Amino acid sequence: MELTVLSDLSQQELEEQLQQLEKKYDQFKEKGLALDMSRGKPCPEQLDLTKKMLDLVTSDDVYKTNSGVDIRNYGVLDGLAEAKELFAPILGVKPAEVIVGGNSSLTMMHDTIARAMLFGVVNSPKPWSQYEKIKFICPSPGYDRHFAICELFGIEMITVDIFEDGPDMDTIENLVKEDPTIKGIWCVPKYSNPIGNTYSAEVVRRLAEMETSAKDFRIFWDNAYAIHHLTEQHDELVNIYDACENAGNENRVFIFASTSKVTFPGAGVAAMAASPENATRTKNQLGIQTIGSDKINQLRHVRFFEEEGSLQEHMKKHAEIIRPKFDKTIELFEKFLGGKEIAKWLQPSGGYFISLDTLDGCAKEVVLLAKEAGVTLTGAGATYPYGQDPYDRNIRIAPTFPSLDELELAIEIFCVCVEIVSIRKSLAA
Amino acid sequence: MELTVLSDLSQQELEEQLQQLEKKYDQFKEKGLALDMSRGKPCPEQLDLTKKMLDLVTSDDVYKTNSGVDIRNYGVLDGLAEAKELFAPILGVKPAEVIVGGNSSLTMMHDTIARAMLFGVVNSPKPWSQYEKIKFICPSPGYDRHFAICELFGIEMITVDIFEDGPDMDTIENLVKEDPTIKGIWCVPKYSNPIGNTYSAEVVRRLAEMETSAKDFRIFWDNAYAIHHLTEQHDELVNIYDACENAGNENRVFIFASTSKVTFPGAGVAAMAASPENATRTKNQLGIQTIGSDKINQLRHVRFFEEEGSLQEHMKKHAEIIRPKFDKTIELFEKFLGGKEIAKWLQPSGGYFISLDTLDGCAKEVVLLAKEAGVTLTGAGATYPYGQDPYDRNIRIAPTFPSLDELELAIEIFCVCVEIVSIRKSLAA
Repeated sequence: MELTVLSDLSQQELEEQLQQLEKKYDQFKEKGLALDMSRGKPCPEQLDLTKKMLDLVTSDDVYKTNSGVDIRNYGVLDGLAEAKELFAPILGVKPAEVIVGGNSSLTMMHDTIARAMLFGVVNSPKPWSQYEKIKFICPSPGYDRHFAICELFGIEMITVDIFEDGPDMDTIENLVKEDPTIKGIWCVPKYSNPIGNTYSAEVVRRLAEMETSAKDFRIFWDNAYAIHHLTEQHDELVNIYDACENAGNENRVFIFASTSKVTFPGAGVAAMAASPENATRTKNQLGIQTIGSDKINQLRHVRFFEEEGSLQEHMKKHAEIIRPKFDKTIELFEKFLGGKEIAKWLQPSGGYFISLDTLDGCAKEVVLLAKEAGVTLTGAGATYPYGQDPYDRNIRIAPTFPSLDELELAIEIFCVCVEIVSIRKSLAA
Repeated sequence: MELTVLSDLSQQELEEQLQQLEKKYDQFKEKGLALDMSRGKPCPEQLDLTKKMLDLVTSDDVYKTNSGVDIRNYGVLDGLAEAKELFAPILGVKPAEVIVGGNSSLTMMHDTIARAMLFGVVNSPKPWSQYEKIKFICPSPGYDRHFAICELFGIEMITVDIFEDGPDMDTIENLVKEDPTIKGIWCVPKYSNPIGNTYSAEVVRRLAEMETSAKDFRIFWDNAYAIHHLTEQHDELVNIYDACENAGNENRVFIFASTSKVTFPGAGVAAMAASPENATRTKNQLGIQTIGSDKINQLRHVRFFEEEGSLQEHMKKHAEIIRPKFDKTIELFEKFLGGKEIAKWLQPSGGYFISLDTLDGCAKEVVLLAKEAGVTLTGAGATYPYGQDPYDRNIRIAPTFPSLDELELAIEIFCVCVEIVSIRKSLAA
């Protein structure tokens, strides 16, 4: 019976099943658990992979780079040359096009939009804050912190579906061609948050080439998971910078990345890349905001990856730790939810999340029920603009932080919740 | 003849003196020197004082604070509890009122104004950017990077004189009482940049109590040199937060500080303090910009000062290194310029600068002449809004970075330049 399509069951069968599930749920609830799968946080074992980095700049150092910069003192606005070289291949640009920041690419994204609001970007007719209203395209489900930035700045968000090959380009092309107040789009193009998919070559090309009514339209290309493969089968992402340049739209894109999920989430290094014109404008403004980011931490990172051999080898070690958690999650989904036609998910080959769609109208209730049994999930709706999932079905699972045992328990409880809510829904219909 | 008041000399005597000085200048010029006294940078010996800090979080750590926070992972928006405790006495507030940031208090100041431009502050009728024009009071000579922030945001700067006991309060009180578009004032209240003076108790009280036409008027209290004493004779600064609170104006002040000139200029920790209402608003916006600053570096700082005994003891070591440079500068000023009535200066008891006033209309030429002889000074005018010193007389000397030998040479050349320009001016009159 477990593997039967839910809709094939009679009312009585559903009620019996529900009773069993509710009993199981109550047993879980009695345990008083506190399991958290809400945020894409590396687990302690992952953080340990990088701890030798903390031994690479100590009191017996000379504190000088090859070019003679004292890494302890003021200066070097856009980052050490060596740090630019580290980030260039991640961002897909030349080292000269990299601006190295502090510990947060979120801050670099926020600040880039704050500057656009206050001053506009290259080719802006006026500062974005001087429009009655401006809008951003938000392929969804997407990253809640992107949406929070739009909300903070009063930027209206237009929700656009995201498919397996990337956002719905037909809709986007029509929107941006007609509406000059659409100033940007958020993209997590590789192993996307939360779906885990990667934009196709066609989607990247269309984003780079599409006609935009706003002459100052910008793609915010948050390549957060550029090198975060889970398997040997790497998704390939076309280089957006080259695509924009080839289309004569080199000022269209800002590219962001960080080592938050490569080294330390709280003490990594972030970087961005942009066309020479964009970068010059950014640096002119950045030079008023700071004298320079933490160069000691930049050098720690540079030295660590010199010793490690390569970023790629290092990322394999991360994958070894977290892949079993992704595999276990998918395995349990198959076991408890498979064949019942009450949930859909994709198996990502990289990134930090698994996205599960329940039946329409069930997500909020599932998250609530799980919470009451001690399993904290990302809030239902969080993956959509304004926290409003129009279908109330998307739930983001973050399997990396809990231990495998905790995860197994949490996913089982979660699946019980999905089944309970689905049956209740079915019975109420 | 050397110690004669310049204006007492005959034209012939002046010409003879000028010839001798120009000969001396040419000899210096031939050396092809490259000496830099332009920025307030700690010297390498000062940076070495803190290097043991880099050994305090290494690969054998447990990476946990007392409250169980993993310092490597995401989170803790406003800083570790331990870091707040470190900053509380520097900022003159309770730990709960501290927001710990990244490596730059300049960034915290810039961002505070950027937020005010975009959203206003507590009690703002509207965002500051929505006014036709807003203005800031800029006591001058002052800190060029403050003025650059105003320029970036298009905030009109009103230059107000600064006296030995602080800014000209009569003028300020009149201005802010009448003009609702004056939204703020920049203050470096202790060992000020560049004069080195400290605001009197009376000045602090008047700033806290004065009637302002703008209900959202803010004091930007950049207490950059709070603990940067040069001698045992410490200047006393009244607590601005208490003064504002007592006056019923607790939302009036934002207080800033950093360890840039305590530990490492490029890799220190910055912090700010504000009233509960101001702080809540700031943190709500900050939480969209970042998940948290670098907690590993915060813990390095906390542990270092636990081992050192106290901040105060550590700052004495800094003073031992740089006080001889201040003393030498003053000694040479006395020797070469004393009694000639062509320059004025104060001997500061803390901070990073010595401010010298030439005869009116001489500063630009002195800086240019020095530059041509290989001595780089802060640009003349930099200490005034828009880079415009209305008297063309203020020159900021930053004696900390060069070695004592280099400094001696640089100051001697500088004094020759001051004399040459003064005599030329006198002859041309």
